[in-house]
Amino acid sequence: MKAIYKNRGSVFCNEGAWKILNEQLKKLQPTKVFILTDNNTHQYCLPLFLEKYVYRHTPEVLIMPEGEPNKNIHTCLDLWEELSIKGADRNCLIINLGGGVVTDLGGFVASTFKRGIEFINIPTSLLAMVDASVGGKNGVDLGVLKNQIGVIKNPIMVIIDTHFLTTLPEEQKFSGLVEMLKHGLIHSEKYWNKVKDLEVRNFDKIEDLIWESVIIKNNIVTKDPLEVNLRKTLNYGHTLGHAIESYCLQENIMEPLLHGQAVAIGIILTTFISNDLLNFPSNKLKEITNIIIQIFNKTDFNKEDIDAIISLLKYDKKNREGKVLFVLLKDIGDHKIDCEVPNELIYKAFKYYEEFQ
Amino acid sequence: MKAIYKNRGSVFCNEGAWKILNEQLKKLQPTKVFILTDNNTHQYCLPLFLEKYVYRHTPEVLIMPEGEPNKNIHTCLDLWEELSIKGADRNCLIINLGGGVVTDLGGFVASTFKRGIEFINIPTSLLAMVDASVGGKNGVDLGVLKNQIGVIKNPIMVIIDTHFLTTLPEEQKFSGLVEMLKHGLIHSEKYWNKVKDLEVRNFDKIEDLIWESVIIKNNIVTKDPLEVNLRKTLNYGHTLGHAIESYCLQENIMEPLLHGQAVAIGIILTTFISNDLLNFPSNKLKEITNIIIQIFNKTDFNKEDIDAIISLLKYDKKNREGKVLFVLLKDIGDHKIDCEVPNELIYKAFKYYEEFQ
Repeated sequence: MKAIYKNRGSVFCNEGAWKILNEQLKKLQPTKVFILTDNNTHQYCLPLFLEKYVYRHTPEVLIMPEGEPNKNIHTCLDLWEELSIKGADRNCLIINLGGGVVTDLGGFVASTFKRGIEFINIPTSLLAMVDASVGGKNGVDLGVLKNQIGVIKNPIMVIIDTHFLTTLPEEQKFSGLVEMLKHGLIHSEKYWNKVKDLEVRNFDKIEDLIWESVIIKNNIVTKDPLEVNLRKTLNYGHTLGHAIESYCLQENIMEPLLHGQAVAIGIILTTFISNDLLNFPSNKLKEITNIIIQIFNKTDFNKEDIDAIISLLKYDKKNREGKVLFVLLKDIGDHKIDCEVPNELIYKAFKYYEEFQ
Repeated sequence: MKAIYKNRGSVFCNEGAWKILNEQLKKLQPTKVFILTDNNTHQYCLPLFLEKYVYRHTPEVLIMPEGEPNKNIHTCLDLWEELSIKGADRNCLIINLGGGVVTDLGGFVASTFKRGIEFINIPTSLLAMVDASVGGKNGVDLGVLKNQIGVIKNPIMVIIDTHFLTTLPEEQKFSGLVEMLKHGLIHSEKYWNKVKDLEVRNFDKIEDLIWESVIIKNNIVTKDPLEVNLRKTLNYGHTLGHAIESYCLQENIMEPLLHGQAVAIGIILTTFISNDLLNFPSNKLKEITNIIIQIFNKTDFNKEDIDAIISLLKYDKKNREGKVLFVLLKDIGDHKIDCEVPNELIYKAFKYYEEFQ
């Protein structure tokens, strides 16, 4: 079995994982079990979960509205009230069944209800499996600003079952793929090459690569749980990616982008900047741009869009004293944190992205 | 100097405390300093604070509306947004200057903003000095239900300056006195006797007793930070006290009670129950009732009030499997946790309180 054993935040993948979940329930003896889903996972993922779940209490189902715009404190308030009405006490357990929105928000609701009750995450999207599954970050957005409110607390355990991926729309899978590509870029050329060769429309046999991504991320967050230095590398492409995503979440401006789409653009821009400032190899920049543009169609940004995106950078959580600080790369697997980037270079990067053929 | 040194949550009292605060600021080098007050502490306590504060950044003042009804997630949302607009980054510091509502809510806002920024508590009420100053509990109410949302996280340090007490209305001091009496009841007859002899209308030379209360609470929370057993004793009188307070917070039913007033009634009721179930000495029950009734006028409860209060007990955070669990006393300083109490006995306790002369 694929497993990472820890005091908190153990991860178990596929075969044997459900058995361990049921053993854990028997050991914990929660007074009630709640399962948080969104409208989609309620329909497509809950049946598989219920097939596998064995415990004396039938789980009580909580449903939240799906998608990033609902990852906010109002949804939390509804859930806290529902838990309260349903008699949840400190010895209850919440199981979060869904993508990153459900596991991030559900983890925060559990970590703050009655000053913290236990929770288990079962990521059902590729993105949540390779990204949100380890590291203990949870929380919600503040308006369009991503993940501004939250805490760092690990679930007791994480169950990854790749069968859930069969229920996932294709473009959602691509969002996860982008994070796996990022793991390659910050970690090693070897893993980059494996992921980039993954047949984009054919995700068979992806299980081993998912696990490799989980291990890469786990090694990073174990060394630097509080994001003092090394963990910042996981933000590669996300400084710009989050600003782009926030901008597109604002109503009536642009088509909303998936998280992965926004980060994909962020990775291209940041790699261009790395090439300019740290001599990241030009041939690899071209390869990376090519691979990512194959996955997602290009998005158009005009001068006004870019101005607004740059002004959103000031909310990035890595900033210090009003300075926006980027993670850049000298080469694949060779990072430099806390880099200042002049705004002109960001405009140049957008120009590169737009004109790339 | 009176001081408890810890990795987090160090407490410093009176002389020398401000010097240590300023040294700490110099060491931490926060990028910005925010000071959270309510309308009252803004007027009565901020001037003294500003006299003592020395750091390169002038603090930016945040004001929240005062009182328990504003200790909710909406006030947090306003503050998170204000912090965001004012450019707060992860390396900012929040100083909470006020009573328990300000330190509880401010501690929660800080612990969850960008997944946690540092904070310092400066309690200005007697209640906050002896109760909220140690233990790291923070959070907000959910509707009328007390402290349902929160986390346990210690501030970097706590500054107790008893000069602030001169700005405090008399009945607010009594709320603090009740917690000190409780520390006597759960800890030792010796401390109980010292506090009970405190001249109720003359709080001179209270500093040593405040410090003794801080030490008692600190010893308890250090042994059991997560409230698995011993820390539950600090809830003595609070199980019923919180239900009474919640009930009175509901509009148009009764006059709102101060936290201390509600807990005072809770202590009398719980001591009556202790006498009935665990043979707590009758003469001491009488003495305790006498002392507490001297401090606060009696409140009238009819059958309907008591029914509603009992039904609110189900939200108590110490409950397990729907059972309401009380801390009771066999004698002063001799507790028993996790006791079930039949409802009839609670009605009898209210009757005892109402009829006491």
